[in-house]
Amino acid sequence: MHAYSLVHDDLPAMDDDDLRRGRPTVHKAFDEATAILAGDALLTLAFELISAPQTHGDPFVRGELVSRLAQVAGHAGMVGGQMMDIMLEGQSPAEQEIVQLQRMKTAALIAYSCEAGAILGKASPSLRAALVDYGRDLGLAFQIADDLLDEEGETAETGKAVRKDALRGKPTMVSILGRDRARAQALVLAKQAARHLDLFDEKADLLRAAADFAVKRRA
Amino acid sequence: MHAYSLVHDDLPAMDDDDLRRGRPTVHKAFDEATAILAGDALLTLAFELISAPQTHGDPFVRGELVSRLAQVAGHAGMVGGQMMDIMLEGQSPAEQEIVQLQRMKTAALIAYSCEAGAILGKASPSLRAALVDYGRDLGLAFQIADDLLDEEGETAETGKAVRKDALRGKPTMVSILGRDRARAQALVLAKQAARHLDLFDEKADLLRAAADFAVKRRA
Repeated sequence: MHAYSLVHDDLPAMDDDDLRRGRPTVHKAFDEATAILAGDALLTLAFELISAPQTHGDPFVRGELVSRLAQVAGHAGMVGGQMMDIMLEGQSPAEQEIVQLQRMKTAALIAYSCEAGAILGKASPSLRAALVDYGRDLGLAFQIADDLLDEEGETAETGKAVRKDALRGKPTMVSILGRDRARAQALVLAKQAARHLDLFDEKADLLRAAADFAVKRRA
Repeated sequence: MHAYSLVHDDLPAMDDDDLRRGRPTVHKAFDEATAILAGDALLTLAFELISAPQTHGDPFVRGELVSRLAQVAGHAGMVGGQMMDIMLEGQSPAEQEIVQLQRMKTAALIAYSCEAGAILGKASPSLRAALVDYGRDLGLAFQIADDLLDEEGETAETGKAVRKDALRGKPTMVSILGRDRARAQALVLAKQAARHLDLFDEKADLLRAAADFAVKRRA
């Protein structure tokens, strides 16, 4: 699901990016039609995989995985957030609008990735909610860190073109709050994400480290 | 699922169509980014709807609906067929390759539409197979009729641009067999589709009429 969203986001009609992870984007390596279809195929494959009996023996579990994924990835989640993103280009939205956009565009799918573990493991409602909250705050922190990298990073590090958002007049938390406040906000969100894991013992240490990594990474 | 496939197929990088059902295509009425995202949202919505508990109380049934839809719509079905269609442009494929392409691109989703009823109604394997076979032959007949309309129809009737396949050097059953043999083939397939319904009584009359309609329609 994530790979498809990158392939479609990189299209000329969208972000028009030539480079991703240091390599040509799909429409550059092949062509636009192939990139559109590759994205469509990957999106569909996500549902094929999680609905397969091999994923979990319990059909309730598989159904929940499918329903939630469709909700977070679709019009009320990732795709809707991407549309808001496009519509806000050149606008001066309030901070709250940017947060809403990034919840839909980025944080919902990351939160789902955490929730999916809870669904597969038939976790209690409170543990499942904690994992969703962790993923959402991590996702918001990650997006701010990504926007800071777009401002401050180098293509050699990030493997993609930088300083594109400012050129396109795309409002981000960085453009609205400034770099220092945005960086502080990302750190607060990463800490908050980790705090949702207080219900878990040291088994959650890798997730705690992931929250830290999301805001400290250079690429 | 069908609507998304039309929106993406009409994109400039794909069939580049300005008109669909007599109205501007999505990328003409709005823009390309909106059309790409609208398609992505519709594709995802299909899975959201069929995985919802309101669709059927039995999670096995919902899971089967999701799995089969993902299979017929994805890389081994509709999207894969669309990719083959693009790759065969300007080529001279064998008749069997065109049939394979149209099974994937068109007939698989139509067969699924029939199979979905069998899944929802928990039909026996033999009735379910009969409905799938009906849908597949109907789909193949439909596609030949569509290609004939592209050759012979008028935009005022079809609501879309005509004679595009020939201009693009797109091989179809019509370009390979000629109009007369293609028309005969469509009629044979439509009859064969109806014969798969011999297991059913007059409850299947509407489906029998649909097979007839698919090859006689003028739009």
